[in-house]
Amino acid sequence: MHFDISQRAQRLTSSAIREILKITEDPSVISFAGGIPSPQTFPVGLMKEACARILDEAPDAALQYAPTEGYTPLREWIADRHDVTPDRVLITTGSQQALDLLAKVLVDPGSRILVENPTYLGALQAFSLSEPALVPIECDDAGIVPEALTGAAIRGARFVYTMPNFQNPTGRRLPLARRREFVAAMREANVVIVEDDPYGELAYIGEPLPTMLSMNGEGVIYLGSFSKIVAPGLRVGYAIAPEPLMKKLVQTKQASDLHTSGFVQRMVYEMLRTGFLDAHVKQIRALYVGQRDAMLASLASHCASRMSWNVPEGGMFLWARVLDAVDVTRLLETTLAPVSGPRVAFVPGSPFYAGVADTHTLRLSFVTVPPPRIEEGVAQLAAALARLS
Amino acid sequence: MHFDISQRAQRLTSSAIREILKITEDPSVISFAGGIPSPQTFPVGLMKEACARILDEAPDAALQYAPTEGYTPLREWIADRHDVTPDRVLITTGSQQALDLLAKVLVDPGSRILVENPTYLGALQAFSLSEPALVPIECDDAGIVPEALTGAAIRGARFVYTMPNFQNPTGRRLPLARRREFVAAMREANVVIVEDDPYGELAYIGEPLPTMLSMNGEGVIYLGSFSKIVAPGLRVGYAIAPEPLMKKLVQTKQASDLHTSGFVQRMVYEMLRTGFLDAHVKQIRALYVGQRDAMLASLASHCASRMSWNVPEGGMFLWARVLDAVDVTRLLETTLAPVSGPRVAFVPGSPFYAGVADTHTLRLSFVTVPPPRIEEGVAQLAAALARLS
Repeated sequence: MHFDISQRAQRLTSSAIREILKITEDPSVISFAGGIPSPQTFPVGLMKEACARILDEAPDAALQYAPTEGYTPLREWIADRHDVTPDRVLITTGSQQALDLLAKVLVDPGSRILVENPTYLGALQAFSLSEPALVPIECDDAGIVPEALTGAAIRGARFVYTMPNFQNPTGRRLPLARRREFVAAMREANVVIVEDDPYGELAYIGEPLPTMLSMNGEGVIYLGSFSKIVAPGLRVGYAIAPEPLMKKLVQTKQASDLHTSGFVQRMVYEMLRTGFLDAHVKQIRALYVGQRDAMLASLASHCASRMSWNVPEGGMFLWARVLDAVDVTRLLETTLAPVSGPRVAFVPGSPFYAGVADTHTLRLSFVTVPPPRIEEGVAQLAAALARLS
Repeated sequence: MHFDISQRAQRLTSSAIREILKITEDPSVISFAGGIPSPQTFPVGLMKEACARILDEAPDAALQYAPTEGYTPLREWIADRHDVTPDRVLITTGSQQALDLLAKVLVDPGSRILVENPTYLGALQAFSLSEPALVPIECDDAGIVPEALTGAAIRGARFVYTMPNFQNPTGRRLPLARRREFVAAMREANVVIVEDDPYGELAYIGEPLPTMLSMNGEGVIYLGSFSKIVAPGLRVGYAIAPEPLMKKLVQTKQASDLHTSGFVQRMVYEMLRTGFLDAHVKQIRALYVGQRDAMLASLASHCASRMSWNVPEGGMFLWARVLDAVDVTRLLETTLAPVSGPRVAFVPGSPFYAGVADTHTLRLSFVTVPPPRIEEGVAQLAAALARLS
């Protein structure tokens, strides 16, 4: 049997990250690779209570087909948190699905969409199925450079995709003044902003900055997720969209998977309504900032002469750059097959670029392994750097 | 803000069925509309045990990011049931998602895909996002007519989509001899068969017929679901695909929602491994065949002079045809706003057609309301028919 694969699927490649994550399934590997939340943060006790309550009190509704838009009390909770009306909230199967839906609804083959450079690899993959023309926009250490947002490339773009808080992969946060400039520039250019915000709650310095959604509700599609603050295995995310887009997003989701599991939506809501989240997020922040600091300290003592890195103000990742003499692909091969000591995984930076890549970059996650192993892993990374420089 | 909606999304319409289902959320409406499993069939007790066991024994893995392919023990269980290797099984977010993935992987704009006429509306919607040219194939009361499968329309088609068991919407089952002819013809024409089989276990007469998958594993993509035999609200389905397609399906699913909730996958597996399913399916069959018979008896006593219908050998639906003088849209308006008595919902047949529609058809589900209400609803339907003929 011969199979004719569609053009778009032919072009799709497996995420380099997912391939590296397979290696990290071996628990002896010290993984700085994935954005894998620490299982310590999963509210298992509350989940048990939630499951029992749902199956005692509303099994028929929780297990039945349900509206595509999502479970109403969960939509109301989200709407309240973001000060929007519930009819603008669509529950999605993780926020990855929201990226797929947005591309389906807003992108024709060849449509221009603007992306940060580097940007989230999962977004590039989701968008690629709709065959857009990706236009990388200029970024510096703080994120998007508002002055660069001019000219023909911007006007007529279907949307601009940005992760303003603790971006995956760079960990950087867009400062407040730049947010305001960016939102104003996009409003002026009539370009929709897709604000992807899975890490927004994980701010380690000061309070979270205002969302772009709060600055221009009519021009921003906000994507949220419970993966980093409750648990990724439930696959519950959401989109908050301007009213004129909701109908098409709902129709498209209906065609894509009918609806997100009503059972897991209720699990999330039953936990949220206990009011646990804010205290829980504080605990997660305390855990992760400690791990971040452990990684920063280890890097300072082992790698200072051969690598530079940023100090993320939140999230899960820091972004590093090796000396020009070092090949990052060879570095990964070396840390995965060391002469002695533990194997260490990380993700090279190149796959995250939509435009010209800085091939000497890498992404390091500090959330997956505890501080003693962070120290051990960074020492191993330093040994490999020494061997290759 | 102005939004440029993609061509494909502009063409997408909301399912007429989903709109009618909104009306049936009012419990006073007697619904023959949806393919909504009876909540009596949900194994709530086993589910409670499954949730407790998962959260006691493997919370970290169940709540974490997980492989796109699905939970290995569940894939093995499915593979064993269908006598294939587990590496050919992909867990999907309901089988609706499998339809979306197949269109993404196999359909370019304008690609020909063959569909039964009428066919499952959700498939038409999922496929439409990839902008195929739909080619309806000739069907009679038993399903696809193998003799019609010749000529230029067949050759070069990307796939043929069929629901051989108790098809939605017609309830018909393709006889064994026709299955064999059909599989042979498609193998000869080098056209992949997509065998969608959500109702296969719900056979009320004799044993289930052999799947097309069992006749030509290399040329059939089989779609299965736990929605009708466990519970739809979990959103767990699966695809069994020939090996050369698996990699692209997995990559595409990764881009679409990363993976189906590991928690609900484990819920399904924890129930399945108790061995409950076969006895459970027998109970569902006994329940639904009783409801089918109640509907057939009610139709015979109230509607025989003004409507004809088939006798489905399984599944959830029967297919009826009113006299040419009756307008089915007006019939629905009348049953939804009766002069007296309960409101009754059903689904007109026209939206299910990809080719020329028989506008005098309707789909009646016998699984959602219990026999006394079936009798009441059919009487109301008969009253409306009498008024309009």
